[in-house]
Amino acid sequence: MNFETMMNLFSRRGILFPSSEIYDNHPSGFWDYGPYGAAVKRKLSELWRREVIIRANMIEIDGSICMDADVFRASGHLEGFADPLVECSKCGAIFRADKLIEEVTKEKAPEGMSAEKFDSLITKHKIKCTSCKSQLGATRKFNMMFKVSIGASKPQDAYLRPETCQSIFAGFPRLVKVMKKPLPLGIAQIGRSFRNEISPRNAVIRAREFTQAEAEIFFDPGKTEVENFEEIGNYKLNLKSEGDSRDYSPVSAKDAVGRKIMSKLAAYYLSIMQQFLVKCGIPLEKIRNRELGNEERAFYAKESWDTEIKTSLGWVEVVANNNRTDYDMAAHGKISGKDVTVVNPETNEKFIPHIWEISMGLDRLFYCVMETSYKKDGERVYLSLPPYLAPYSVAVFPLINKEGMPAKAAGIAAKIREAGIDVDIETKDSIGKRYARADEIGIPFCVTIDSQTLEDGSVTIRERDTKEQKRYKIGSMEESLRKMVGK
Amino acid sequence: MNFETMMNLFSRRGILFPSSEIYDNHPSGFWDYGPYGAAVKRKLSELWRREVIIRANMIEIDGSICMDADVFRASGHLEGFADPLVECSKCGAIFRADKLIEEVTKEKAPEGMSAEKFDSLITKHKIKCTSCKSQLGATRKFNMMFKVSIGASKPQDAYLRPETCQSIFAGFPRLVKVMKKPLPLGIAQIGRSFRNEISPRNAVIRAREFTQAEAEIFFDPGKTEVENFEEIGNYKLNLKSEGDSRDYSPVSAKDAVGRKIMSKLAAYYLSIMQQFLVKCGIPLEKIRNRELGNEERAFYAKESWDTEIKTSLGWVEVVANNNRTDYDMAAHGKISGKDVTVVNPETNEKFIPHIWEISMGLDRLFYCVMETSYKKDGERVYLSLPPYLAPYSVAVFPLINKEGMPAKAAGIAAKIREAGIDVDIETKDSIGKRYARADEIGIPFCVTIDSQTLEDGSVTIRERDTKEQKRYKIGSMEESLRKMVGK
Repeated sequence: MNFETMMNLFSRRGILFPSSEIYDNHPSGFWDYGPYGAAVKRKLSELWRREVIIRANMIEIDGSICMDADVFRASGHLEGFADPLVECSKCGAIFRADKLIEEVTKEKAPEGMSAEKFDSLITKHKIKCTSCKSQLGATRKFNMMFKVSIGASKPQDAYLRPETCQSIFAGFPRLVKVMKKPLPLGIAQIGRSFRNEISPRNAVIRAREFTQAEAEIFFDPGKTEVENFEEIGNYKLNLKSEGDSRDYSPVSAKDAVGRKIMSKLAAYYLSIMQQFLVKCGIPLEKIRNRELGNEERAFYAKESWDTEIKTSLGWVEVVANNNRTDYDMAAHGKISGKDVTVVNPETNEKFIPHIWEISMGLDRLFYCVMETSYKKDGERVYLSLPPYLAPYSVAVFPLINKEGMPAKAAGIAAKIREAGIDVDIETKDSIGKRYARADEIGIPFCVTIDSQTLEDGSVTIRERDTKEQKRYKIGSMEESLRKMVGK
Repeated sequence: MNFETMMNLFSRRGILFPSSEIYDNHPSGFWDYGPYGAAVKRKLSELWRREVIIRANMIEIDGSICMDADVFRASGHLEGFADPLVECSKCGAIFRADKLIEEVTKEKAPEGMSAEKFDSLITKHKIKCTSCKSQLGATRKFNMMFKVSIGASKPQDAYLRPETCQSIFAGFPRLVKVMKKPLPLGIAQIGRSFRNEISPRNAVIRAREFTQAEAEIFFDPGKTEVENFEEIGNYKLNLKSEGDSRDYSPVSAKDAVGRKIMSKLAAYYLSIMQQFLVKCGIPLEKIRNRELGNEERAFYAKESWDTEIKTSLGWVEVVANNNRTDYDMAAHGKISGKDVTVVNPETNEKFIPHIWEISMGLDRLFYCVMETSYKKDGERVYLSLPPYLAPYSVAVFPLINKEGMPAKAAGIAAKIREAGIDVDIETKDSIGKRYARADEIGIPFCVTIDSQTLEDGSVTIRERDTKEQKRYKIGSMEESLRKMVGK
């Protein structure tokens, strides 16, 4: 199984496909989720809400995608969120200057290097176009935000946010006042972000429009105790630290803090997130938390861990965990001229809150959940998704489309739905084909209505992973399904 | 109670506030939902999913906001989605030419009139700037879509969709193949849309970024029977037809069809939507379905009904219901050159599907639900939201913040949450103030932990609308709350 296998499945079942695909020249990096994909993505959001947001006592907002240019002046995106690009003077191929230089020198270019410095390194190392070997043009900085022009009479520049957290930062001064919650205060959001990637690739792994599930925990830097730390103290984190050649080495959250591998904040929120990923069905051995070294870390970050998931594309960064310090709120305070401080109730002193960030790519998580659940059993293909993440928990099949079976199936589906379980009815093709189709999208339980159903009111329930079939009486079936689905 | 009262409440409780508000020059027409607002909006989406999408056997997708320019060439938006604007040559005030002319002539300007025609009418009626009485400039057509430029090397124009349905139309050819569902096939979507409104106003009623919940039902124009019509046959619709001076006149869906007031499709989906609005807590007398006359209807629409809700701002259009004919798919087929037809299984003939559209503005619905639920009882203000739409179903209050009450409250909140009910804990201020705050955001049930709780394990539950308080034993309380909340 590899990336192509997954894309093939996505395409065949309409799970995920290119946006505007009927137009041959549609821009790349934009993806639409069909019904099964949209359902899994939605259920991942719901699980995140329950297992991260509610569990860790956060609040959740829903902000605009399009934001004032000043927001990004403050955040540094207007100035710094740019890739250094070089174009071949002959064939027009376009490259990232830093990546080209890295390939030759085997060294990572430091962040924030000027265009001139890139040009001199390209000259020094005699780097040419990798496709036609011609001379490269001058390096230019290409800002990755999408700009829009607002209004008709005096148009005003605005940008599509490149990360959802900027809505949280801009809203914080009001929210901390009106919500009457003390710090640490976690504010979360699920929403779209946009980045004008130069080479979007690997479908939703690097897309231009994507969904993030971010949580920003505002805290007093003088108080880094974590109230509910005991909940996860003995939970073992899969770690890959700098200079650690092992792929992962489980260390309890408590020990990770005691041995000064990480801060208490890091240990708490990495544990919450790792437990969440396990609930998503990701095998523990495919999860690792990797500390970022000085050169990899964002310039404002004090401590950074990437939570990665192993896929056929290698380790994919799914969650970025950062101590962003007071960088964000200080910058927004300075550029807006507004008071962004919080008062310490004990000392009455004002301070700018620091932020621990948990930034998750929901589309990347979606891909990883789908790929790691992909199973092949001879000719049979199935997704071993947890029942609460499957596109439908239950599919109902009338064995044949006559003798009153379809009507019976509709009635049974309605009963299952009343029990709070989502259900689909499939009537087309042979029962074998229908099982195969249900397997392929990960439906955990198939309820089949046959002639015996009409006689004695019993149905078969077939379980996806084991293929086992058992008969249940209508009436007791609903409660059994509830238990199996985990309701 | 008026619009200002609502905005004041929204602002005071962080329910809804301007995006990027800490920046003084932030563009208008963009709004952020704080925790309580986001929760109500999310619950409205969930209710719509259950009462419209699942109920009417539709499927749901989740598409990109940013789409290929060709999509909008086909849809007609590139050419026609433009307002005729005139600017005052002296003070720079900007006006819609059609609205200015309408005010003077008291006649609606026909759709698609040219800029020159507007100019000649302005000259004919001697129309001046309404603010400084100076001469107006020439009319220009201002396209209301936001354009973005994609990619670095050969930038490509794309647009933020002005309506979510375009994702549905572009995805239809694939979806109808892979989903193996017969027509009529309803495809729905909740998502953001963007329109560069010239004068955004009334907060989310006319914003530049907004959330739509749209459903497009693809049907064979030769088969307009509605399978489950009997379900709503006797349901009474509030109607305001053209030439009907009454505000509403309940007619059963069956009679509305029999008396040729509307098509069967209209009667079915208007009933589904009216029932949904009633479930949202909108009083029946504040709902009306108004047929649009020839001049009001979009040029491609064959039958159009606006479902409107009465607010302090007048009747607000919340749902647009349209028979869009084969306009959309014919246009996309033509411009893309792709096969967008469907095969009739009986005759084997290909045809372009027609579309019945139910387009709902989720932010407008949010506003209407909040406003119509606003109640004043002496000094007391409360929102009489249905329990399943309240930001939290339950709030838990420890009477005082000592004697073990906060810990007890946390334990009780956890039990309520385990019962599948969302819950908030409030510890600040007097119990009276906490009740008042809960009322103001519509929390239907407040559970108070007092000294008696510590003695006999009982709590009080206070009901929002009646203010009645009753004691319940922990253990039986959870099930009682489940019933009260409607789980």
